[in-house]
Amino acid sequence: MPIERSNKKKIFNDPVYGFINIPDELHFDLIEHSYFQRLRRIKQLGLTHLVYPGALHTRFHHSLGAMHLMQQAIQLLRNKGYAITQHEAQAASIAILLHDIGHGPYSHTLEQTIIQGVTHETISLLLMQRLNAQFHGALDEAIAIFTDNHPKSFLSRLVSSQIDMDRMDYLKRDSFFTGVTEGNINADRILAMLEVVDNELAIEAKGIYSVEKFIVARRLMYWQVYLHKTVLSAEHMLMKVLLRAKEISPQLVDKITDPLAFFLQKKGQFKQLDEDENALKYYSQLDDFDVFTALKIWYNHPDKVLRLLSQAIVDRQLFKVEISTTDFPEERKDALRKNICNHFKLSAEESNYLLISGKTSNHAYHPQQARINILYKDGSIKDISEASDQLNISVLTFPVTKYFLCYPKVLA
Amino acid sequence: MPIERSNKKKIFNDPVYGFINIPDELHFDLIEHSYFQRLRRIKQLGLTHLVYPGALHTRFHHSLGAMHLMQQAIQLLRNKGYAITQHEAQAASIAILLHDIGHGPYSHTLEQTIIQGVTHETISLLLMQRLNAQFHGALDEAIAIFTDNHPKSFLSRLVSSQIDMDRMDYLKRDSFFTGVTEGNINADRILAMLEVVDNELAIEAKGIYSVEKFIVARRLMYWQVYLHKTVLSAEHMLMKVLLRAKEISPQLVDKITDPLAFFLQKKGQFKQLDEDENALKYYSQLDDFDVFTALKIWYNHPDKVLRLLSQAIVDRQLFKVEISTTDFPEERKDALRKNICNHFKLSAEESNYLLISGKTSNHAYHPQQARINILYKDGSIKDISEASDQLNISVLTFPVTKYFLCYPKVLA
Amino acid sequence: MPIERSNKKKIFNDPVYGFINIPDELHFDLIEHSYFQRLRRIKQLGLTHLVYPGALHTRFHHSLGAMHLMQQAIQLLRNKGYAITQHEAQAASIAILLHDIGHGPYSHTLEQTIIQGVTHETISLLLMQRLNAQFHGALDEAIAIFTDNHPKSFLSRLVSSQIDMDRMDYLKRDSFFTGVTEGNINADRILAMLEVVDNELAIEAKGIYSVEKFIVARRLMYWQVYLHKTVLSAEHMLMKVLLRAKEISPQLVDKITDPLAFFLQKKGQFKQLDEDENALKYYSQLDDFDVFTALKIWYNHPDKVLRLLSQAIVDRQLFKVEISTTDFPEERKDALRKNICNHFKLSAEESNYLLISGKTSNHAYHPQQARINILYKDGSIKDISEASDQLNISVLTFPVTKYFLCYPKVLA
Amino acid sequence: MPIERSNKKKIFNDPVYGFINIPDELHFDLIEHSYFQRLRRIKQLGLTHLVYPGALHTRFHHSLGAMHLMQQAIQLLRNKGYAITQHEAQAASIAILLHDIGHGPYSHTLEQTIIQGVTHETISLLLMQRLNAQFHGALDEAIAIFTDNHPKSFLSRLVSSQIDMDRMDYLKRDSFFTGVTEGNINADRILAMLEVVDNELAIEAKGIYSVEKFIVARRLMYWQVYLHKTVLSAEHMLMKVLLRAKEISPQLVDKITDPLAFFLQKKGQFKQLDEDENALKYYSQLDDFDVFTALKIWYNHPDKVLRLLSQAIVDRQLFKVEISTTDFPEERKDALRKNICNHFKLSAEESNYLLISGKTSNHAYHPQQARINILYKDGSIKDISEASDQLNISVLTFPVTKYFLCYPKVLA
Repeated sequence: MPIERSNKKKIFNDPVYGFINIPDELHFDLIEHSYFQRLRRIKQLGLTHLVYPGALHTRFHHSLGAMHLMQQAIQLLRNKGYAITQHEAQAASIAILLHDIGHGPYSHTLEQTIIQGVTHETISLLLMQRLNAQFHGALDEAIAIFTDNHPKSFLSRLVSSQIDMDRMDYLKRDSFFTGVTEGNINADRILAMLEVVDNELAIEAKGIYSVEKFIVARRLMYWQVYLHKTVLSAEHMLMKVLLRAKEISPQLVDKITDPLAFFLQKKGQFKQLDEDENALKYYSQLDDFDVFTALKIWYNHPDKVLRLLSQAIVDRQLFKVEISTTDFPEERKDALRKNICNHFKLSAEESNYLLISGKTSNHAYHPQQARINILYKDGSIKDISEASDQLNISVLTFPVTKYFLCYPKVLA
Repeated sequence: MPIERSNKKKIFNDPVYGFINIPDELHFDLIEHSYFQRLRRIKQLGLTHLVYPGALHTRFHHSLGAMHLMQQAIQLLRNKGYAITQHEAQAASIAILLHDIGHGPYSHTLEQTIIQGVTHETISLLLMQRLNAQFHGALDEAIAIFTDNHPKSFLSRLVSSQIDMDRMDYLKRDSFFTGVTEGNINADRILAMLEVVDNELAIEAKGIYSVEKFIVARRLMYWQVYLHKTVLSAEHMLMKVLLRAKEISPQLVDKITDPLAFFLQKKGQFKQLDEDENALKYYSQLDDFDVFTALKIWYNHPDKVLRLLSQAIVDRQLFKVEISTTDFPEERKDALRKNICNHFKLSAEESNYLLISGKTSNHAYHPQQARINILYKDGSIKDISEASDQLNISVLTFPVTKYFLCYPKVLA
Repeated sequence: MPIERSNKKKIFNDPVYGFINIPDELHFDLIEHSYFQRLRRIKQLGLTHLVYPGALHTRFHHSLGAMHLMQQAIQLLRNKGYAITQHEAQAASIAILLHDIGHGPYSHTLEQTIIQGVTHETISLLLMQRLNAQFHGALDEAIAIFTDNHPKSFLSRLVSSQIDMDRMDYLKRDSFFTGVTEGNINADRILAMLEVVDNELAIEAKGIYSVEKFIVARRLMYWQVYLHKTVLSAEHMLMKVLLRAKEISPQLVDKITDPLAFFLQKKGQFKQLDEDENALKYYSQLDDFDVFTALKIWYNHPDKVLRLLSQAIVDRQLFKVEISTTDFPEERKDALRKNICNHFKLSAEESNYLLISGKTSNHAYHPQQARINILYKDGSIKDISEASDQLNISVLTFPVTKYFLCYPKVLA
Repeated sequence: MPIERSNKKKIFNDPVYGFINIPDELHFDLIEHSYFQRLRRIKQLGLTHLVYPGALHTRFHHSLGAMHLMQQAIQLLRNKGYAITQHEAQAASIAILLHDIGHGPYSHTLEQTIIQGVTHETISLLLMQRLNAQFHGALDEAIAIFTDNHPKSFLSRLVSSQIDMDRMDYLKRDSFFTGVTEGNINADRILAMLEVVDNELAIEAKGIYSVEKFIVARRLMYWQVYLHKTVLSAEHMLMKVLLRAKEISPQLVDKITDPLAFFLQKKGQFKQLDEDENALKYYSQLDDFDVFTALKIWYNHPDKVLRLLSQAIVDRQLFKVEISTTDFPEERKDALRKNICNHFKLSAEESNYLLISGKTSNHAYHPQQARINILYKDGSIKDISEASDQLNISVLTFPVTKYFLCYPKVLA
């Protein structure tokens, strides 16, 4: 009875779910591809590990986890009698597996500095199309789901909506690796409550508390982790380094890697990433190592701004952060800039690199985005913000905005 | 170097915290006392295990768990520089260890049926006083803390308030044993944020998300577990059995245990439990075994009402439950009563035992009770319902009320 | 698209696995049956909770858990290409669901005292046959699997062997509820390694360390939990109570329940439980409540032996235990008996009830029982005790025997 | 009552233990030092994440975790009455905090290739001495403990022995992040069983099963993780890259970082690392980024051997591995070398870089190293290998050796 089995039925160990099964050869081959392997070298949470030292997990692991949840969701929907063909199941699974393939290192940071004009979502689609060509059209249906062009639109919602497999995995995973256990959500229960109504996802009414919990956990993770003030400080310091490096790129010695050098020297915004075949090639090689190794190299660079910022990140001497619900007065900022000039012997223009100010905001629940529908026993549907009997989720629909100001600790 | 050590330094295994240490001989001797051992035979959540089969944990284990958290809280407060003497620490720990010692089996059910006029809190105090006499006044300070008569009132808040060791342990423990993981709270983090301001407990401002999470988790546990409609049904069925048994107590054969027989035959309300020395003696023997074994005996009883209800609980053929945000119309109830009379050949008066109607309500956060104070870096204090920037906890301060109607499934 | 769904597709919450799904109506109806509901009132580990206070979980929960693992095992074997029909899957699942249905309260204790001559295994089969009659033969195949009369014998091994779903669930569950985390096993990994060779179960060679771990964990649970010396003491005290009650059963007042009274009055051994229809009826009503409530009643009984033992168990004043690798000398026992007579004013014959001596032994791995086969890549098979490269599992095949002696602490 | 508190009382989030407290300012300042911050950039398990994608945790986090266990161990020993002064406690804690400070990136790999002649232990001591100078002798006692020159030798055992805080943390942590849950050990229980006898550590006899479990878990982690065949393959491929890079270092373009370039150009062995002040300076800058970024640069290098190996690691096209209990015949190796020459058009000498052969071995328990003592109630002491009643730990004292052979998959 022992049976011929493909060597491509691999199992990954995952501390979050135990085991993750690779369901078929196409998944296996996509995972083996260098585009996907690159995600092993891109941390899910950028510099967050400077605050939560366990947060070193990668987009590779997250993508596998989201795929795992998708397999479960499809199985549960099928058990409830919703028809999903084998090919649709594969396509939905591949769509979520590849949803982050366009992410670069320190993604939000780079998109605001050296890779402007294109988002990681459009790059994900571009790379999926390249893979589709290499795999002779095997990803057609996955791309239809990813771009919300599939007749069963609930499959697209599983990939992207306010309660999709992406969010469920990243909340569980980020909570797990940071150790912020309050962010853990009960994905099993939410998945068990999934229904499809009029081609859209819905949640059974008895799952309403779990959805509320999900929204509250997500909000907690935003303020406690993703927008943690020290993380904000580190990320904005990295932006400043990259902006400085871009400004002085001609004089940067050629120690840094080719992919990073390419993007530092790029003038202006991209219209699309494949406007230049080199851009796509270098992008698909760019990872955390290129960026952080550059910081290590610039630790001793003659440019004082570049050097000071690089040292501060490498040695984790992060800037002091102040947070406020209103913007900081210009006089305060001017005074700080002046202090920076004096203390570090910098020009007025250079001092801007050592003063960070900005704002950040978060919606716990976006009523304009794909809504979370609650399905009642009588077949009626309500949005979660109306369905909740008390936890006033409608209150959570207003964005919260916070202003921040960061500067070297020595000036505090 | 090996050292004489008391055999009374015991360690309990606890799946929730790992290990629970008994800190000294007085604790050990109190735990050994038959008053406290009785709590081994009283389930924390009464009949909830009929819905969540793991929920068999006892008030014994909960009391040890709350004591464990108290030890940690005291240690953390001392580390922060708040002065707590060794005797105060012992007293606070004993106050929480014994806070539930007056609970009877299926406590809320019995208080509304056969043990009327006294609450478990007053019985806890009574039993503590008896123990204090036996232990020659060693519990004086514990009683002062328990009754909020201690100069360091924050110690009383650790025993009883909206964020006390009791709640923290029961939320963690009930979540753990039911498997409703969303109810799990991060006690470690909340304890780490504890401060004392003006003799009252407060929480550091950076712990605000954890407190919000605590309130939301508690609310979720209420609706998902404590007030779960099938649990409500089972508990009200038990009330009906006990009321029926009380009504016909003279004809109940003497199979049932003496403690239960005593309370079934008691006429009217207690003024206080020690008005009759027998009452106290029998109460201190009464546990889940007396009550549930009576149901097993009444399974074959000639009184049809007693028999039907007992069979329904023992075999878990629980009543159908309907829930509504408004009360059910009297005509509906009358029609159901008529059906019951017909179907079961019961008199109109007897039919009342098979129809249950009532209401239940819950506050997620009571602004009138001891408030949850948030302490800011500038030393100012706000109530959590004002401090939260978005999660409108003030909304949670209104009670939610639900009406229920339960009747035999055969009539549904 | 919303779909008619049976109300019988229930989900149980389980803190061990998260959720347990009831796969079909037959399972649902069997679980609802009073035979199966009785298991809710039978603790898996008898009096073990006197040492590990969390160990209150029931045979009901264990049976559901083992069924859950069976569902997973079948799914994984099918994924590997082994043919299992839908009806076989249902049958295997029901066989494991009902494998413990013949267990009585404090099972091992009762089998050695008041229910002699029949084992719980034979009673399980008897009750399955009764259920089969009620369900018109729907359990035929389940019974074939349970009795090892099914052509696919590997299905019988999943129900009963040294690495069956029963053991996997009870090790995980007992470890979970006692808090002895070292007993936790990785059921997921072992299940993922299952293969079928020549109609027998085998484990892929790369799972060898997990199997070793399983055997070591099981051994640890034996000595740390199942044969814990205080648990031994409590269980043997309960045997002594029951033996005493049996001896003096005519004078026992009729407070105790009918099922227990029946078995106390039974003379001699059973040949089979259904030799007397009353025996089967009463057995199917007997649970922990009958036995422990009797102890509470006997707490004040005029018979001194019955009273002393009952008080000691109820108030948890357990006997002192001594353990030795050799038997205790008769003189030692005689001296203790004499002390007991003097101290408690008992006759020589009565003193035997307060002195417990005996031995206990455990095999970590039984080479004579259904072996654990390891499957190598070349298709060859070895027994685990030969396959392990170093952990000398063959050493674990010898039984370890320990002698114990228990007596009232006052004599220590 | 609010109190002046140092900003240096920091708390780290840790998914393994929840929270880790920094006990005092000296610890804080050492953690802030760039020597210690470097450990943030050195993964505990090198390339193991290529097999277990979660295994990205760092020596930084492990060092904090081991410090956390040390704090607990000291607290528990003090509770048992063993005298440990405040300064000794601080010293032991610092000794374990810094025990890995001399580790380089991919430590075992580098010690066999480009940093020969000095072990990470001697470098740890060297760096501790430098820190001691900077901190004006504050580390004198910590160094005495680290070097086993302290009168309370049990403190040195807590830092280094077969059951030290280092091992306990790494087993727990590696098990946690790999997801190999069978490697998890119950550190709490082992710590609770610690005693001191004749200035040496011992374990109470009732902890014997936990110690056995610890040894078995460690053995499992060795074979399942540390010596996993694919990990072996990756690590030996990295060795080959570095050896090749060293051989052709003059022609390596200057893209690689200065610290790595220094060590690649070093001729021969070090006598001691501070024989050259540059060596120490560069070593204290060297981390995973230097090494892995070099692989990314060499991905396109003209040297074919360097390029092939670098591509294979970066894209995770790892060599096929064969394992055997006996060495592989020379003819087999010669044939493979010949195939490599043909397939890749390499010289005979170059082909050696693409063929890896070697052996690996592991002791589960070393009887020659600091033994694990079991303390009996009568005060006697036995080595664990004699104390265990059955699990033949003496069998585990023999080393197990396995031979391996790795080569490009294309030749398989």
